[in-house]
Amino acid sequence: MSRFWSELARGLSPYVPGEQPQIPGLVKLNTNESPFGPSPKAIEAIRATAADTLRLYPDPQATRLREALADYHEVAPDQVFVGNGSDEVLAHTFAALLKQSSPLLFPDVTYSFYPVYCRLLGIDYTTVPLDAGMRVRVDDYLGRAGPVIVANPNAPTGIALSRAEIARLVSARSDAAVVVDEAYVDFGAETAIPLIRDYPNLLVVQTMSKSRALAGLRVGYAIGDAGLIAGLTRVKDSFNSYPLGRPAQAGAIASLEDDAYFQQARAVIIKNRADLTAALAGLGFEVLPSSANFVFARHPDRSGQALAAALRERAVLVRHFTAERIADYLRITIGSEAELARLTDALREVLVQNS
Amino acid sequence: MSRFWSELARGLSPYVPGEQPQIPGLVKLNTNESPFGPSPKAIEAIRATAADTLRLYPDPQATRLREALADYHEVAPDQVFVGNGSDEVLAHTFAALLKQSSPLLFPDVTYSFYPVYCRLLGIDYTTVPLDAGMRVRVDDYLGRAGPVIVANPNAPTGIALSRAEIARLVSARSDAAVVVDEAYVDFGAETAIPLIRDYPNLLVVQTMSKSRALAGLRVGYAIGDAGLIAGLTRVKDSFNSYPLGRPAQAGAIASLEDDAYFQQARAVIIKNRADLTAALAGLGFEVLPSSANFVFARHPDRSGQALAAALRERAVLVRHFTAERIADYLRITIGSEAELARLTDALREVLVQNS
Repeated sequence: MSRFWSELARGLSPYVPGEQPQIPGLVKLNTNESPFGPSPKAIEAIRATAADTLRLYPDPQATRLREALADYHEVAPDQVFVGNGSDEVLAHTFAALLKQSSPLLFPDVTYSFYPVYCRLLGIDYTTVPLDAGMRVRVDDYLGRAGPVIVANPNAPTGIALSRAEIARLVSARSDAAVVVDEAYVDFGAETAIPLIRDYPNLLVVQTMSKSRALAGLRVGYAIGDAGLIAGLTRVKDSFNSYPLGRPAQAGAIASLEDDAYFQQARAVIIKNRADLTAALAGLGFEVLPSSANFVFARHPDRSGQALAAALRERAVLVRHFTAERIADYLRITIGSEAELARLTDALREVLVQNS
Repeated sequence: MSRFWSELARGLSPYVPGEQPQIPGLVKLNTNESPFGPSPKAIEAIRATAADTLRLYPDPQATRLREALADYHEVAPDQVFVGNGSDEVLAHTFAALLKQSSPLLFPDVTYSFYPVYCRLLGIDYTTVPLDAGMRVRVDDYLGRAGPVIVANPNAPTGIALSRAEIARLVSARSDAAVVVDEAYVDFGAETAIPLIRDYPNLLVVQTMSKSRALAGLRVGYAIGDAGLIAGLTRVKDSFNSYPLGRPAQAGAIASLEDDAYFQQARAVIIKNRADLTAALAGLGFEVLPSSANFVFARHPDRSGQALAAALRERAVLVRHFTAERIADYLRITIGSEAELARLTDALREVLVQNS
């Protein structure tokens, strides 16, 4: 700790992302990346930006990308905000909308970046326990003060709320901003985007990192009432005028234009998830019902930490969290068939040992 | 203004970047971009990242890029921080180092994003007037409390302090963090980077947007004592784990490896600046002595606003600021010979009219 740090810097507890190790032959199922590449059209569009025009700043408003997202999601361009991955979009959202006099509400088990943003931005928060089935219970967020953020599907559980349940939450909490973080929505949950017409307090955040396989490009976005979007834009324009470079804007636009590829890729993930869920159940795991590109599973006889370590020895990487309520679980990304076969083979080997 | 905005969002005064219009045949001398493309090796490296591997997150620590910058600047990798353009690096610097109990000090005429960061982050600041020659006077920053940020060369004046003057500032103000924003240093000023060995309170910020012609890629960085860098990293990891995508990391590394191209491009800019300065003087302009890739100039008979508007009518875009002390000036980017000929022809035409 340097004596030149601000009090703010001293008080932080940074987020720890899943590791990105360089291990040959590694089966990497720890950061919810797609096993397939992005749309070939996105790759081609990114390649085309590798040119002398990189000397020029990108469009600071990312107008064409926002128009493409508006078309895709059937909203207006002023209802769309874009950022450097959904993490940056979330950071600006916390600053613009979720820093209020009443504490922010979110589940006790959810994306672990939320309390990190709160610390950075000086936001009070109250965690709301998931129910015994690890589900978000909308009723627990009603009749209370303070804005709300829920991930839907939730992470790392993978469990989704229906759009009707989200509508009930947003409608009953019309006094406050309600943010729905839909990083994983494309793998089988219902998006809340159609609700934004009726609810000026609803902001939906999505990402191109998962279902569009563009984690390496850094593009996330938010969709909501133009008033909410204008608030995010004020914060963004007080932080960094040009968060999205030319390759990112071009690649994201082209990805949206290739819906066939997108639909096919997510269908395979959904099928592989069903197969993995069955295989894990066959090995004695309890698997939460996932609508995401990962499953959250625990074994009655083995600790999550021990299983994650044993898999790592076999060059299979999954994510394990130490927070008490979820310490027994593994979060396993839905990979390709071959990757998932490597995972289940390794698990079988581990479970036979010392049994 | 939406009722769901935070107090923070309500209180902001966002930065306004130079416009990026789509006008055919435009001579664009308003945002200090390079007239030349980036190194062909950088272009090739970016092209190579347009591949299936974009499905994977980038290295959140940008280890290879930080090593390449450390090699280039003859420092250690833990003395290097990278971000999504130097604007993001500056934002994190303000949060990690410049938010202190005593007001931050910076010149009254400087990069107009500094007060915007202060508003976003709740930082008190005091502006220190440039002297009558529009120069930063180091003595004005001594014997005072509070951290310091100076742009060197300063923007939009283009005037540089020598490394010895920076050393005098950093040494005399060993009680506080001193940040030197060297966005334009490669066009003829002396970098303060060699001083970081001796001064744990010095942070130097640079960008690849100007001299490396990668404005469209978004890469900036800071170099300083490992203690300062660790503070920046804590803030970054509380905001966005992966600010630099794969194309940005790869392109930046390749640019550093092509020193011949870099040296040649900046030599041409320096030559063109001398030619433009002489041409403007011949047209009656007072031109401040610039060490940057722009000049700051005023004409005794014409307002800056009128000249900028007349040039815009002739499809030549320069930057004009409305702040009182600099309202008479134009900031003109050093373009190619042909662009600068278009500019001086247009100016000649404008000055002949109504004279």
